[in-house]
Amino acid sequence: MSKSQNAISPTRAENYPEWYQQVIQAADMAENSPVRGCMVIKPWGYALWENMQRELDQMFKATGHVNAYFPLLIPLSFLEKEAEHVQGFAKECAVVTHHRLEAKPEGGLQPAGLLEEPLIIRPTSETIIGMQYSKWVQSYRDLPLLINQWANVVRWEMRTRMFLRTSEFLWQEGHTAHADDAEAQEETFRMLDIYETFARDYMAMPVIKGEKTPDERFPGAQNTYTIEAMMQDKKALQAGTSHFLAQHFSKSFNISFTNKNGDIEYAWTTSWGVSTRLIGGLIMTHSDDDGLVLPPKLAPTQIILLPIYRSEDDKAQVLNYCNELASALRSQQLCGQSLRVSIDTRDINTGEKGWQAVKKGIPLRVEIGPRDIQNNQLVVMRRDNSPRQKTLLPRDEFINGAVDLLVDIQQQLLTKASAFQQANFHTLQTQAEFHDFFSQKDDEGPAPGFGICYSVHNEAIQQLAKSLKVTARCMPLDRQQISGRCIFTGEPTTQQIIYAKSY
Amino acid sequence: MSKSQNAISPTRAENYPEWYQQVIQAADMAENSPVRGCMVIKPWGYALWENMQRELDQMFKATGHVNAYFPLLIPLSFLEKEAEHVQGFAKECAVVTHHRLEAKPEGGLQPAGLLEEPLIIRPTSETIIGMQYSKWVQSYRDLPLLINQWANVVRWEMRTRMFLRTSEFLWQEGHTAHADDAEAQEETFRMLDIYETFARDYMAMPVIKGEKTPDERFPGAQNTYTIEAMMQDKKALQAGTSHFLAQHFSKSFNISFTNKNGDIEYAWTTSWGVSTRLIGGLIMTHSDDDGLVLPPKLAPTQIILLPIYRSEDDKAQVLNYCNELASALRSQQLCGQSLRVSIDTRDINTGEKGWQAVKKGIPLRVEIGPRDIQNNQLVVMRRDNSPRQKTLLPRDEFINGAVDLLVDIQQQLLTKASAFQQANFHTLQTQAEFHDFFSQKDDEGPAPGFGICYSVHNEAIQQLAKSLKVTARCMPLDRQQISGRCIFTGEPTTQQIIYAKSY
Repeated sequence: MSKSQNAISPTRAENYPEWYQQVIQAADMAENSPVRGCMVIKPWGYALWENMQRELDQMFKATGHVNAYFPLLIPLSFLEKEAEHVQGFAKECAVVTHHRLEAKPEGGLQPAGLLEEPLIIRPTSETIIGMQYSKWVQSYRDLPLLINQWANVVRWEMRTRMFLRTSEFLWQEGHTAHADDAEAQEETFRMLDIYETFARDYMAMPVIKGEKTPDERFPGAQNTYTIEAMMQDKKALQAGTSHFLAQHFSKSFNISFTNKNGDIEYAWTTSWGVSTRLIGGLIMTHSDDDGLVLPPKLAPTQIILLPIYRSEDDKAQVLNYCNELASALRSQQLCGQSLRVSIDTRDINTGEKGWQAVKKGIPLRVEIGPRDIQNNQLVVMRRDNSPRQKTLLPRDEFINGAVDLLVDIQQQLLTKASAFQQANFHTLQTQAEFHDFFSQKDDEGPAPGFGICYSVHNEAIQQLAKSLKVTARCMPLDRQQISGRCIFTGEPTTQQIIYAKSY
Repeated sequence: MSKSQNAISPTRAENYPEWYQQVIQAADMAENSPVRGCMVIKPWGYALWENMQRELDQMFKATGHVNAYFPLLIPLSFLEKEAEHVQGFAKECAVVTHHRLEAKPEGGLQPAGLLEEPLIIRPTSETIIGMQYSKWVQSYRDLPLLINQWANVVRWEMRTRMFLRTSEFLWQEGHTAHADDAEAQEETFRMLDIYETFARDYMAMPVIKGEKTPDERFPGAQNTYTIEAMMQDKKALQAGTSHFLAQHFSKSFNISFTNKNGDIEYAWTTSWGVSTRLIGGLIMTHSDDDGLVLPPKLAPTQIILLPIYRSEDDKAQVLNYCNELASALRSQQLCGQSLRVSIDTRDINTGEKGWQAVKKGIPLRVEIGPRDIQNNQLVVMRRDNSPRQKTLLPRDEFINGAVDLLVDIQQQLLTKASAFQQANFHTLQTQAEFHDFFSQKDDEGPAPGFGICYSVHNEAIQQLAKSLKVTARCMPLDRQQISGRCIFTGEPTTQQIIYAKSY
């Protein structure tokens, strides 16, 4: 298939939101389901999630966490125990009210078996887990309790977008309980650091660690910390959060323990989570007008072999060669895992196979025909280069260098994304600058980027930001020591806030 | 802690159902939650499930299946499309009717935002997946479709028992679509074989493969095949099922395709699943009156090191020795995984640590004190022996033989369970024998075991079985060729049916 234009239409410049949907469709990662607000994660998207899960799970376990599983359904009364929490989630709860179906007189079925107390499908599990922890935690010896759960959650959303905002999503939620304040705070930051490391070292997605302003906190948290990423349209994506819950939930759920002195104290708790939203972030960080671009460490297939043949004799020879090559490659490791290599043996033309591999974001494509076998060389194409850029490599050089090539692609993706983030990160010195920077209209192209300024947090500033359709994304952790003056009020402050348009 | 009695009270002989609950509690695997019919799977139980998942997942992938994820919530109208299916599940559906909460005038919250169409929490996903497949399958080239999903499902249960029957449970459900009858049947048996292999080779649980009688079929299936295991109380446990759905669901959901001749045909589908119920089966196959017994291949910890010391000097020396020993053991592999070794460093006495390890079912316990270090030997205890049976082994002999020891324990568990199953498997020649065999009352001790006989399947025989509180478990696949006469009606038949009391 000869192509003179890009594989994805519209391009990013033409229509970014539609480009995003088309990238997902072209890569066959996911699709909307007939169930309102819920998506189907198709095998290619799910395999990516499995790779993300495996790496995150290892990082959680390496820091002493264990997995467990708590009920999907939460009694309404549990949710009500923490006042801010229930307020935060009441408007988006799927409510189970009946436990069976019965025949309607006019035909069809209707709900029956009314429950005494309605059950909520978990939007998050602080309440049900808090209830269990109150039983499990009795003595300081029971602490810390370091538990993570991989689960689905439901938050009823009116406007949904695949991976970024869906009524049901998959995530992990860590819930820990500690004997003191300092240890719980340390845990909150430890997990934020793990999220940053994962985003940077596996997703090749640079993020900014910061504290959320009070109005953006998790309902019931004392402090919420976030990793914020910049998408290619310069909008911010909240990619993961870690919450210091202080004693809010332990007091609501009576998670108390006898300390070393024999006194009763409330535990200090944290919670932290990342979700399938990360996949949306990954797509929007790296993909281009030819489709998905996957960082090699997470790609379900890292190298795809594209056999070329015309005759049946050629076919046998080429496939045989491909199988041997695949074995040789699979004996090499990246991140402690055998290289993930596939051979596209389908009876469709090689050009079409190549374009499908491009659209699926596979890091390395290798074409192999009878002449290449004769010359003992391979045609290698990197996904981070132009789709038509080909390199001829001797077979053994490619095998021995495959891991290095993948590591280089991984590094290049991070370098490019970091440069983009830095280029679109602006320091704003005055209120006028703030206004000018953010007053570009949405339909004049991409968002203006991230603007950081000294800023206190008050209602008037929030209103101003709202009028420009931006929000306070976070107060970066690496900027909390230097003092200046709020560009809105002139008050002295050490607080710097990043504002941006966001998902 | 010196003990002259068993660690679990009551014993199996005293009260089997209560023994089961106590084993789970003593091993800290799971507990009932305050949410009706739902359990909490605690870290020790969940780690076992993770090991089971990993091995099953590998077996699924090795046979060409990929994972995906479909919505939790199913519109009522989808469920209604397959008549038998909806009938089978209508009485146990959790129904979502509202999508938010609002304040009640008298305080508190109530469901609000009535949905136009009620949503069912999936009890199984044939309908929602069928709906998607009808979009994905267009041509014979799109087949076979070989997809598995790891998920939670909800079936409202009135009488629940941990792991065996809970309102919410975790499982995998495979859903495949094929171009013809034969290929779909082959898939149905392939997955049944995988379940048998997993049960036997990983769980050390022998199972009987068979076809379900018509009244025990999955709602909507053409044939249901099962693996049936015998618990230590001689009751049967349906441990996994594989369904040949023929064209029932493809016709209801219009999963059709253009075949090679250009004609439109309906696809042939299958579904197959195992759940956290397997954990209940594992517990009841191997555990004894001292608690859980885990097959080494699945044990979250395979070897636990129990350091013994009195002084701080001893402590440092012993812990150092344990760390080195653990490293040496972890460099060995079982089933392609590093040995899972932990060191119990808690400041409680060694006897208590030992009993906890017994109750958790850890295959090998190793005591290490200063004198053992001096003599370069270890005190090794196998979970499948009496808790007090100790073997002195030179350090290097133990390290080099650890994998063999674990393999031997795995084998012994299977041998013992197989012998038990065979000893309690009876051929019944006449209706009188059938009656005598099954007419023992429940409170006279354990169930009588499995009885197999030539039997046709009719209402009268079902009623007779019901009056004896037994059910047709399956028609074993390895007995379908030999002909005889039904012991109830005298009719000639090749059909043999296993009857048993069951979970």
